[in-house]
Amino acid sequence: METYRSEKEYLDELEKRAIVPEGFLVSTGSLKFFPVERKVTDPLSMNLSLIVTEEPTPLFGAVFTRNAFPGAPIVIGKKRLSSKYFRGVIINNRIANVRAPNGIEDAESVLRELSRILQEKEEYFFPSSTGIIGWKIPVEEIIKKLPELVRGLNKKSLLPVARAIMTTDSFPKLRSEEVGEGVIVGVAKGAGMIEPNMGTMLSYILTDIEISKEFLREVLKECVDKSFNRISIDGDQSTSDTVMLISSGKKSKVSENLFYAKLLSVCEKLSEDIVRNGEGVAHVIEVSVKNAGSESLAKEVGKAIVNSPLVKTAVFGNDPNVGRIVSSVGDLLGNKGVVVNPDRVRIAVGEEVVFENGYFTLDAIKENRLVEYLKSCYMNPENRGYPEHDKKVKIEVDLGMKEGVAVVIGSDLSYQYVRENADYRS
Amino acid sequence: METYRSEKEYLDELEKRAIVPEGFLVSTGSLKFFPVERKVTDPLSMNLSLIVTEEPTPLFGAVFTRNAFPGAPIVIGKKRLSSKYFRGVIINNRIANVRAPNGIEDAESVLRELSRILQEKEEYFFPSSTGIIGWKIPVEEIIKKLPELVRGLNKKSLLPVARAIMTTDSFPKLRSEEVGEGVIVGVAKGAGMIEPNMGTMLSYILTDIEISKEFLREVLKECVDKSFNRISIDGDQSTSDTVMLISSGKKSKVSENLFYAKLLSVCEKLSEDIVRNGEGVAHVIEVSVKNAGSESLAKEVGKAIVNSPLVKTAVFGNDPNVGRIVSSVGDLLGNKGVVVNPDRVRIAVGEEVVFENGYFTLDAIKENRLVEYLKSCYMNPENRGYPEHDKKVKIEVDLGMKEGVAVVIGSDLSYQYVRENADYRS
Repeated sequence: METYRSEKEYLDELEKRAIVPEGFLVSTGSLKFFPVERKVTDPLSMNLSLIVTEEPTPLFGAVFTRNAFPGAPIVIGKKRLSSKYFRGVIINNRIANVRAPNGIEDAESVLRELSRILQEKEEYFFPSSTGIIGWKIPVEEIIKKLPELVRGLNKKSLLPVARAIMTTDSFPKLRSEEVGEGVIVGVAKGAGMIEPNMGTMLSYILTDIEISKEFLREVLKECVDKSFNRISIDGDQSTSDTVMLISSGKKSKVSENLFYAKLLSVCEKLSEDIVRNGEGVAHVIEVSVKNAGSESLAKEVGKAIVNSPLVKTAVFGNDPNVGRIVSSVGDLLGNKGVVVNPDRVRIAVGEEVVFENGYFTLDAIKENRLVEYLKSCYMNPENRGYPEHDKKVKIEVDLGMKEGVAVVIGSDLSYQYVRENADYRS
Repeated sequence: METYRSEKEYLDELEKRAIVPEGFLVSTGSLKFFPVERKVTDPLSMNLSLIVTEEPTPLFGAVFTRNAFPGAPIVIGKKRLSSKYFRGVIINNRIANVRAPNGIEDAESVLRELSRILQEKEEYFFPSSTGIIGWKIPVEEIIKKLPELVRGLNKKSLLPVARAIMTTDSFPKLRSEEVGEGVIVGVAKGAGMIEPNMGTMLSYILTDIEISKEFLREVLKECVDKSFNRISIDGDQSTSDTVMLISSGKKSKVSENLFYAKLLSVCEKLSEDIVRNGEGVAHVIEVSVKNAGSESLAKEVGKAIVNSPLVKTAVFGNDPNVGRIVSSVGDLLGNKGVVVNPDRVRIAVGEEVVFENGYFTLDAIKENRLVEYLKSCYMNPENRGYPEHDKKVKIEVDLGMKEGVAVVIGSDLSYQYVRENADYRS
């Protein structure tokens, strides 16, 4: 179990993980601007992050949101997946550049200037944006900042990038795994609108391990599906979600199995970090579903539970209202016309079986134990600069059919969630 | 526009509507009990309501939840839809009698005693329960109360029933329409877990108009689908939702079209009342979707918007974060693989067009007008004994395809919602 007692303790640990893999350079900076869409008296600030490879690399891939109204960076990124090489990605927070007039041209102007400074083909560069939807990015201000950003490129630490990409995140998220002679290091930002498939969820994973481009893209897709696509904070998939994997190819190959296992570990840990740092999250909830007939139904059942506002508010209140779990599962199954024999359904919360043989198995003593269990998993959702612990409220659902296993990770629903989302922009 | 300035003004209006149709008798009462599932020092209270016809009537129908784990009253009610006659329904609040050990036997014990007192066949009686899931109803206490309940049967007013069936509802809901020589009168309770298909949503609609049993059941299904099934508070369909329609057949027939129109009006008004009185609701949201290709997709798009926690919290904060509307629609369409041309999509909030020709049409002045519009639709979610007004936040979405129209009604997501649901039971 990981427990951090202070922000410093957490950041010290992150600094250890924050190795910039061989062949990469990173830089961050910030700027001030006035948005055209809203009157503000003080300028807003925006962070920029730049990740480049020392030389162009053919070893890169990305998984993007399936949202039907994707942001300009997604539209551009999808096209540039067929570029022969990757050289760099520039990331801004604060504004997501989604469906703003001339959003694509704006992003391309930035990339054009970046490619001029680095004297590299424009098509080797990727844009990435997170933040408010519908607003224009401040192109002039970003371009003015580029020379300084390029001058600042360094190999010191990936932690400033993990910080600079944050929006309403309260702590940076960075995970790494040693692999053979090299390393896989990933940063991520999450917070709201997290139901990857992909929430505004951005993650950049860097490695120096040599790997074929085909396997890189295949393994990335599989790992994203088993990690980022199994988390859900508010059930919304944003217009900007992106996971990129880039290899400089500077270190010797390892077995495909080993690379897969280590990449999956980085992805799983980052995605759980995202949930733990979701807006106003006071409990992380892990739902394990089995015997659901199919993996896809198991995943749907898991998501139905973690996305039920009634389950989420009950967990927030440390109230073991297990009826709501059963109701949310029954709602999904009923609407889908899936016939389940309630007598074969078994549901447990923590160590306690709460539903078995068709009936709830509740009593006053068991309820008290459940209240204590929920309390033990609580984290203060206010002002968290670090994760207090890595405990999860564990819910197990056995639907009594055959096969069909999935684990879904989500969060509770707190006052703080409402407050943060009722006025994110002002 | 309806506006009420006080609880008294609202209740006076309800009393005018609260006619008990000819051929019906009603009664209410309350009792105290100690639940077996939780230690409490003071007993809990439960309301009982009894609705009977003076004589058995063959003219009755009901639409029940599709939840795969329905409550005992639903299991019994579904069977008794094939009884030849209806004589009465007994309703309790506080405990929903869902998947509690011996729940069906418990409900049947109550009905058996009721049938004995009224000297009528047991199969002519229906049970109905709302409240906590998983707990046992206090059978002995209910049975003890029955003689008094039967003695209290009267034709005075339906308002006490509208009150007695409430759980976390803050005001009673009662609507009526005159039809020919008779009347259609309905009461409903809602509050949480409202995505009928049916949230714990209970509604009993009484009429004295003669109508064939076949048409009664057909028209009830159609009206429920066009009203109760188009509302959503937290996206959960409860284990107990029920809408019953009963006719005493004491008044002359009217045309089928007229009966349909009046029944639909009662159902639409009751379902909007339910949303307006939902737990912690500060804004009612009405989403009108058109040109979605099909009615079912139009309905799904509407529900995706009103069920998005990000849209709901933004509306609560009077924050016109219209990007979240676009994102939630894009999320749904992307996941379903529906291809929409963003250039043909048009979205308006109130009088303001916010998305057109593929782009957001936002500026500071328009944003200010939207803030004022959202504020004008606000209701204080605290301590409401009556609906302040009947304003709705109107969102219009035109997907630019052909056909496919639906209107969905939902609510925002407030602190009060979280508080009420984080500890509903204590």
